[in-house]
Amino acid sequence: MQAVELICKKRDGGTFSTEEINWLIEQYTQGTIPDYQMASLLMAIYWRGMDARETSDLTLAMARSGEQLHVNTVISPVIDKHSTGGVGDKVTLAVAPLVAACGVAVGKMTGRGLGHTGGTVDKLESVDGFTIELSREDFMRILREHQIVLAGQSNDLAPADGKLYALRDVTGTIESIPLIASSIMSKKLAIGASHLLLDVKFGSGAFMKNIEQARLLAQAMVAIGQAAGVHTVAAITSMEQPLGRAIGNALELREAIDILRGQGPEDVSELCYHEAAEILVMTQKAATLAEAEQLVAQTIQSGAALKKLAEVIAAQQGNAQQILQPELLPVAPVRSMLPAPRSGYIAAINAEGLGLASMSLGAGRFKKGDPVDHRTGLVLQAKVGNHIQAGDPLIEIHARDEQEAQQIQSALLACYQWSDHPIKIHPLICDIIRP
Amino acid sequence: MQAVELICKKRDGGTFSTEEINWLIEQYTQGTIPDYQMASLLMAIYWRGMDARETSDLTLAMARSGEQLHVNTVISPVIDKHSTGGVGDKVTLAVAPLVAACGVAVGKMTGRGLGHTGGTVDKLESVDGFTIELSREDFMRILREHQIVLAGQSNDLAPADGKLYALRDVTGTIESIPLIASSIMSKKLAIGASHLLLDVKFGSGAFMKNIEQARLLAQAMVAIGQAAGVHTVAAITSMEQPLGRAIGNALELREAIDILRGQGPEDVSELCYHEAAEILVMTQKAATLAEAEQLVAQTIQSGAALKKLAEVIAAQQGNAQQILQPELLPVAPVRSMLPAPRSGYIAAINAEGLGLASMSLGAGRFKKGDPVDHRTGLVLQAKVGNHIQAGDPLIEIHARDEQEAQQIQSALLACYQWSDHPIKIHPLICDIIRP
Repeated sequence: MQAVELICKKRDGGTFSTEEINWLIEQYTQGTIPDYQMASLLMAIYWRGMDARETSDLTLAMARSGEQLHVNTVISPVIDKHSTGGVGDKVTLAVAPLVAACGVAVGKMTGRGLGHTGGTVDKLESVDGFTIELSREDFMRILREHQIVLAGQSNDLAPADGKLYALRDVTGTIESIPLIASSIMSKKLAIGASHLLLDVKFGSGAFMKNIEQARLLAQAMVAIGQAAGVHTVAAITSMEQPLGRAIGNALELREAIDILRGQGPEDVSELCYHEAAEILVMTQKAATLAEAEQLVAQTIQSGAALKKLAEVIAAQQGNAQQILQPELLPVAPVRSMLPAPRSGYIAAINAEGLGLASMSLGAGRFKKGDPVDHRTGLVLQAKVGNHIQAGDPLIEIHARDEQEAQQIQSALLACYQWSDHPIKIHPLICDIIRP
Repeated sequence: MQAVELICKKRDGGTFSTEEINWLIEQYTQGTIPDYQMASLLMAIYWRGMDARETSDLTLAMARSGEQLHVNTVISPVIDKHSTGGVGDKVTLAVAPLVAACGVAVGKMTGRGLGHTGGTVDKLESVDGFTIELSREDFMRILREHQIVLAGQSNDLAPADGKLYALRDVTGTIESIPLIASSIMSKKLAIGASHLLLDVKFGSGAFMKNIEQARLLAQAMVAIGQAAGVHTVAAITSMEQPLGRAIGNALELREAIDILRGQGPEDVSELCYHEAAEILVMTQKAATLAEAEQLVAQTIQSGAALKKLAEVIAAQQGNAQQILQPELLPVAPVRSMLPAPRSGYIAAINAEGLGLASMSLGAGRFKKGDPVDHRTGLVLQAKVGNHIQAGDPLIEIHARDEQEAQQIQSALLACYQWSDHPIKIHPLICDIIRP
């Protein structure tokens, strides 16, 4: 096989065989196929696409390119969860301990934030001492002993994806549904959970800008899961405004704790409870969604869900007391309330804009490797559809100093649209894609 | 400017500004833009194309990327000629001395053959002592003193094109009209002739497989010439069968000598005389094509055309006696006549097939840097439309030994299609594209 022949095949609209995809990924991982040939091929794939079989073959080839954890051989059922990421997305922080407390093991590796979206790892690291760097043995042991583990993404898993993603990032080939789907799913397949819940977000604050794209991505990933024997369900959820009220690391962890206490904001709480219920049905811990929702509510009320979060924090060397008493979590030195500039209904809140503002307060990264300030961020006092009076609290700024708090005020206000008339609110979960 | 932004711009169907193209070529030549970004961009260009302005901007940027000869400041008018290459294409060998003898200076750099098509340089090197490696000073001096110079392609001219072409070759991005047009024209603009005659070939033996593609390429190149102030005319010629009768280096040089004596095969002679006449009209040495054809005929009859070929051979250290007495040119040790396997009209001759057969006799290169045998090749005894009897001479094989001559017989016969009915012959020149 010759790389240039395969490039021409895809360029001319052809379909790769399983052998051709395996050969491409093996040779690229070994460095026999150079970046410049892979870059040209990636652009041809961006243009011509890949069918479902090619996409799942690519995913499997990347999943096999490095270490594979096979967590479902340690404990089963075991769920993995992935969100395509958004602003204020603390769902994993709440859903993982919630379902673990209901008897579904959760083995998850999670990433750091970049740009306007935060990362689950950064939020967890708000807790003193908490570590996400676990050996394979520790990962397996914690999963077995506590039915939950929340580690950082290992570079040993699906290294072909790591290499390909870095190349896509600089060659204009990120935004391709089959390439996005196979990238996400290759890391999931390398972990090897028996079940997988995906949250595919769309809207101004998400990577997918509209529901059609989100649905295509969700369908592609569910098909890959099915082909690989992993029971996969995808929720398509709206990210037209930030999720919940908190944006920023410790602030979002606090909100997750509120959700686990049954005291979180309505929108994000409902999303978490619904996703948890979906997982309980998938893993046959409940026969119906209604039964599952009841189990979720009991687990919240009994305090078992919050206890499970404290348990995994402790297992990963974190100060669990900060979970049980969230007032012990780090706090920004400056808190400043931005009042509403006018009276009216909030018609829209630009999630990406607020994500970028929070990043400029230190809560996010402009580039990989930047440190983050766990204390800073924003807390929304009103959401889309709320009617408030001029001067009412609009958004609370948690900053390192007064100057930074001042500087972002106009950027924050620019994220709001107002209306004199009531606004129709759309549900957060727009669709569920099942195999 | 960021390379990845420009990749996305072209990927999404955008048009580059002149500044963007200049920046891309400068940064790529300097090595600031790596091959993998350029590879992705080339595939995006392959997909989305470039308009006439982008194409001529790219050509000019590549022409400026290295040395520029400005030959028209030494002598004017000065013609350059380019053929997209075919099987048995010895036109440059005949046309260059023919027009030089008519008073139009010819400053040409020419390449080596690769694959099934031969190179003018290899054909010229059949002559003992002839060198194509000329310093810039010698190139200019020979042009001034003899009004003709036939040098090898300098790597100092349009180095950006050399680098880009090598990348296109391994990334499936060769067959793009704007990229082919700008590659050819960048080297021509770097030489800086005042006039340029292009021969764009199409058919089974040519790079362009059909007349529509050939016309698009010709139009693109004529437009680039016009934008750069070079009077450019393109002939679109058929390469459905080999040109003339000889395929192979010394064999083709002998046929060129026959053409310059007025004794060449009809098809290729007419093509040479017509292209020469076109050049005489372009450069205002003749008012009309009819007048130009008369001048060409006189120059052949007087022997001045052949003398001019001998003159340039001598100026470039070759044995001119081999031109005046072509029986002194090297001869293959084995000549074997392949008879026609049946009676009938020859309906088609696969030029690419015969080119590959000639290559396997040693006359061509499988890869760059391979040596060629100047003696070997094929001489067609009959052409498309001829009626011959079974057992009549079909093709003469000039080989290094009996075994090689034997081995290719079945491949040669497979290149022929036969008919029981007369075959309509199409003219060689199908169209002329003028500015």
